[in-house]
Amino acid sequence: MDSITIIEGGVTAPKGFLANGVSCGIKHCMKTGEVLLSDSSGEGVPTKRDVAVIFSMQPCTAAAVYTQNKVKGAPIAVTKRHLADGKARAVIANSGNANTCNADGEQKALQMCTMLARELNISADEVIVASTGVIGQTLPIEPIQAGIDMLVSGLSQSGGTYAAEAIMTTDTFKKEVAVTFEIGGVPCVIGGMSKGSGMIHPNMATLLAFITTDANINASLLQQALSDSVKLSYNMISVDGDTSTNDMACILANGAANNPKITEKGEDYNTFCKALNEVNIRLARLMAKDGEGATKLLECRVSGAPNEDTAKKVAKSVVCSSLFKAAMFGQDANWGRILCAIGYTDAQFNIDKTEVSLASSVGTIKVCESGAGVAFSEEEAKGLLAEDEIIIEINLHDGKASATAWGCDLTYDYVKINGDYRT
Amino acid sequence: MDSITIIEGGVTAPKGFLANGVSCGIKHCMKTGEVLLSDSSGEGVPTKRDVAVIFSMQPCTAAAVYTQNKVKGAPIAVTKRHLADGKARAVIANSGNANTCNADGEQKALQMCTMLARELNISADEVIVASTGVIGQTLPIEPIQAGIDMLVSGLSQSGGTYAAEAIMTTDTFKKEVAVTFEIGGVPCVIGGMSKGSGMIHPNMATLLAFITTDANINASLLQQALSDSVKLSYNMISVDGDTSTNDMACILANGAANNPKITEKGEDYNTFCKALNEVNIRLARLMAKDGEGATKLLECRVSGAPNEDTAKKVAKSVVCSSLFKAAMFGQDANWGRILCAIGYTDAQFNIDKTEVSLASSVGTIKVCESGAGVAFSEEEAKGLLAEDEIIIEINLHDGKASATAWGCDLTYDYVKINGDYRT
Repeated sequence: MDSITIIEGGVTAPKGFLANGVSCGIKHCMKTGEVLLSDSSGEGVPTKRDVAVIFSMQPCTAAAVYTQNKVKGAPIAVTKRHLADGKARAVIANSGNANTCNADGEQKALQMCTMLARELNISADEVIVASTGVIGQTLPIEPIQAGIDMLVSGLSQSGGTYAAEAIMTTDTFKKEVAVTFEIGGVPCVIGGMSKGSGMIHPNMATLLAFITTDANINASLLQQALSDSVKLSYNMISVDGDTSTNDMACILANGAANNPKITEKGEDYNTFCKALNEVNIRLARLMAKDGEGATKLLECRVSGAPNEDTAKKVAKSVVCSSLFKAAMFGQDANWGRILCAIGYTDAQFNIDKTEVSLASSVGTIKVCESGAGVAFSEEEAKGLLAEDEIIIEINLHDGKASATAWGCDLTYDYVKINGDYRT
Repeated sequence: MDSITIIEGGVTAPKGFLANGVSCGIKHCMKTGEVLLSDSSGEGVPTKRDVAVIFSMQPCTAAAVYTQNKVKGAPIAVTKRHLADGKARAVIANSGNANTCNADGEQKALQMCTMLARELNISADEVIVASTGVIGQTLPIEPIQAGIDMLVSGLSQSGGTYAAEAIMTTDTFKKEVAVTFEIGGVPCVIGGMSKGSGMIHPNMATLLAFITTDANINASLLQQALSDSVKLSYNMISVDGDTSTNDMACILANGAANNPKITEKGEDYNTFCKALNEVNIRLARLMAKDGEGATKLLECRVSGAPNEDTAKKVAKSVVCSSLFKAAMFGQDANWGRILCAIGYTDAQFNIDKTEVSLASSVGTIKVCESGAGVAFSEEEAKGLLAEDEIIIEINLHDGKASATAWGCDLTYDYVKINGDYRT
């Protein structure tokens, strides 16, 4: 049995997880120095929720992957230390400030853990901490300090959705996914939430994906499952080619499902990995779709590659090309830009065999065969590209490996959002 | 004596070179199938000039560097064969169609050489051919055939400027540079023209730079001087991170200056290289400044690097960052994005020592020291960034090597231009 079913919810869909997200007014405090909490009821919140907490009612096995950017956010350093023993029980994450390139960054990140641990009556080193937002501005700790009681007293199963809201920055919608599957006949759940939507070109992980599961699995397999899954999901998306300083994907497994514990590779582990991939790939697609200013999701499917590495390089190169991304915004089937982007990867293959098709919900059009153009109806192509999910199918006819990458179009709004992000 | 003086003109500034550029109506023919030449007087030309010719009255030593994109334009293949003997006498280049990813591409490129050679009474393998424009559409040869007589009969010293116009695509101004210098007391000239302005992220060369000189220099030294110079000029600019399929920089040296021939490395060779760098770097800066949709030239100067390779990687990473480029368009001193772009290079150095300043004609502001922010006036920064040439000074304090890269801001107009380039 390895059937995987999508269900409602996110990080609180698995048994034994509670969450919450409230508005502590971090940005307001950065501007004015004033601490201005919002109503704790979760109703009529005047400003955006900006601090999230996830809590497991029992201890968890935990794993994470982090950005490869040499400039790393302070929370990354603290979280790495806290996860050294493969255990955690809670997450605290804020938006509005990345707490990166600040002299007092680590101290503030640790304070966030300490404050939460005290309220939850757990140890500070059981807390994962994350921050996202502007780089290089001091994180005001006072609003978080003032809001921590409200955050913890409001923890609930329905609070998963508030947590997903609280980590949003320029995201236009919150990103939650959950699946159910069976291990040894016992139903298990994996849930997750993530945020985009700029500085997205992950290298090992992406800016904030939090996954929870009630499956029972040991720490080393959990880490391996996450690391492998990240390579097929978050590492295969790009919004703007900028690898963030604060990227992190983490997973908490509390075992509350009471499945036979997964302690070795085999059928159960494979089922768990499939379910985890399903969650991560769906979250990754949502992040690409909600890329800053994006109007379209681009999915580039490469097949016939001599090896997986080549397939990945080609797929990512296409979804990263500014020229191609702008053409998709303009609904222009300018396939020459696809060939160009394939050509400037450093992967080795025979470009003269390359076949390219464009597809969407309305159909498929072949635009290139054996590395040269084929005649097609521009009008038909325009109609196809008017849809909001575009698939670029590339067959290199040079082997059997394949890979898929996701990206988005390049639009006026990307420029607008990033021309005045700080102000 | 190695003083270098900027003079008026471009490819016809050196002795013995003639050029011309006329409107053959290539784009018009692609749309309608109709051949519609423009008035040969060069006055009142109704459509954009689209075919350029450069001719040396005496045989030349020649050298070139080409794109590293695996998808290569057909003209590149033909030019490589023609330059195998290190000799050439003429150039023919068209805009409006890249003659790339076409089944009959090489045949058409060779036809262009043959037609020109017949009119000039030279051999076809003395002709360098280049094309720029849309990829994957058949190049109509008829308009060029019809225009070749007009092109050749109008060759003149003043025609260099027409040639520079004829290779423009989305460029907003033509790019010409010339310098004079002395070799063994004899005045020599190097002149050049180039075109941008999208798909600019050169790897070995950039889309169409043509350099001429009347200096007398042997073929192997000419090739080495060009290869070295390209690394410091065209390979250090980026408009959009897309490496073109048709990039080419070539140089013709006809020896008409009658300087003592440069046959070995030494003072004369060094002087020649300095003059060549001057021309290429100025042309490269013009291409960055005229990047598609650009309102600002970005110059990133990296110093204190452990080695030149690291300095180059850091400098290019900053001018390539979409996020930073959008911030510059918005005149927002969002230096966190500079640190982020430095951090995601694969170069090895100590990020905690990094110092960053922003500068323009109105002043300099330090924004980051020892990898963390320093207080500065946002208002002052805004004023500084309102200028149209912005310098980003990065000192890694980790060695003695340095490098400079050039780019441009990311604007609404980049998206607009590339959202409907073909239509």
